[in-house]
Amino acid sequence: MEKLYIIKIGGNIIDDETKLSSFLKEFTSVQGKKILIHGGGKLATQIASQLGVEQQMVEGRRITDKDTLRIVTMVYAGYINKNIVAQLQSFGCNAMGLSGADGNLVQAHKRKKGAIDYGFAGDIDSVNIPLIAHLLELGITIIVSPITHNLEGQLLNTNADTMAHEIAKSMSADYDVNLIYSFEKNGVLLDANDDSTTIASLQPAHYAQLKKEEKIFAGMIPKLDNAFAALDSGVKQVTIGKAEQLQQLIAHTAGTKITND
Amino acid sequence: MEKLYIIKIGGNIIDDETKLSSFLKEFTSVQGKKILIHGGGKLATQIASQLGVEQQMVEGRRITDKDTLRIVTMVYAGYINKNIVAQLQSFGCNAMGLSGADGNLVQAHKRKKGAIDYGFAGDIDSVNIPLIAHLLELGITIIVSPITHNLEGQLLNTNADTMAHEIAKSMSADYDVNLIYSFEKNGVLLDANDDSTTIASLQPAHYAQLKKEEKIFAGMIPKLDNAFAALDSGVKQVTIGKAEQLQQLIAHTAGTKITND
Repeated sequence: MEKLYIIKIGGNIIDDETKLSSFLKEFTSVQGKKILIHGGGKLATQIASQLGVEQQMVEGRRITDKDTLRIVTMVYAGYINKNIVAQLQSFGCNAMGLSGADGNLVQAHKRKKGAIDYGFAGDIDSVNIPLIAHLLELGITIIVSPITHNLEGQLLNTNADTMAHEIAKSMSADYDVNLIYSFEKNGVLLDANDDSTTIASLQPAHYAQLKKEEKIFAGMIPKLDNAFAALDSGVKQVTIGKAEQLQQLIAHTAGTKITND
Repeated sequence: MEKLYIIKIGGNIIDDETKLSSFLKEFTSVQGKKILIHGGGKLATQIASQLGVEQQMVEGRRITDKDTLRIVTMVYAGYINKNIVAQLQSFGCNAMGLSGADGNLVQAHKRKKGAIDYGFAGDIDSVNIPLIAHLLELGITIIVSPITHNLEGQLLNTNADTMAHEIAKSMSADYDVNLIYSFEKNGVLLDANDDSTTIASLQPAHYAQLKKEEKIFAGMIPKLDNAFAALDSGVKQVTIGKAEQLQQLIAHTAGTKITND
């Protein structure tokens, strides 16, 4: 099967013009078919604060009321997505930015109220595999913003790690998918503040143990849950590591390889 | 040649949820290949005011400084574009929202400083005809936001009427293009405040006379200049009229038909 790189970029990289630009150059040089999924939380928080819309986060996830939905749609699908696309185009990468609503790329439903009401948060139902395949065949690199819709006219804010996982899962029937979660750290660290403690490869048993010892916590847990779930659902390779080391992550000479054995 | 409808929606329609929704239902019912181009000025002005970014307009065109470019990118390519797409998807229209940067759809250059410095305003150089044709062949309806790029990483704010005209012009070699400028009025009016004074068809000589008599002025002049230029460059039909009367505009039972004879 043909290789398909699905790369999630997040964290502080998007907020740092120099780091983002250097990452996008590296991304452009990745040969073959590829998809980029981005978040963009800090800029959304900043614009929300300027507009006087109070933001509430629960376990790293944003409570999305009506005004917040408007802000994340503007910031993720508008500002960040189009700036990434314009930069990639300037580097010679034929990028096209899409949200989940565009061409019904990623359909979702509003998360049901549990103990926490996340508001307009979307949980993914389906990925438009033929559309993605068509665009890739046209030589297009898809840049996905984490805004989905419910096919009833409602936009929904969706976790970008989950978007990456669901798209990777859906495409793995037809492609040899290499999923990379890239962010500001070297990989999964034994000591969150020390990049030299990167774990080269992580198995489910080791992950369970590290969670128990509370060496892995907060935002890393949903990311790793997504990573293991992707592996379980047919994605060929899953790697977590530093955005600026994209080529090394692909070559498995940096970052943490997520593996079942 | 196959018919292609290129429809510009602007003015107060976008700011009015009910009118927009009713227009999008009409738009969905238009059979065949179609492209929608939207503006969104009022919401951009409102957000700019909330963010404390002063807006300056010259002859109906926005002076686009760095902060304003960020706002129009968020509002046009983000909020308005994705909301239109999500609504159309809910009506069964397979809409995909793109800016000029996406897939290098519309390439432009920064307008040179003349008597007025328009800032990051884009004048169009080229339209990606093969990409548009490919997407139309896939059954996709393209929803274009008026943000372009210069292929050097710079996004640019571009007049939506001009986007519509340039896309119509470019596609007219391969399609029988029907260009419709739809807005809040019945068409070109002899008395700007009286919808019953709609001119059924307008020729260049009549247009020149009306301009001389100052019966046509302000925002209508660039719109009509675009309309006549489109006709001169091979676009089959150009019509100006009320957004809610889209079907009648197509049937030529409403609005103003722009014609050379």
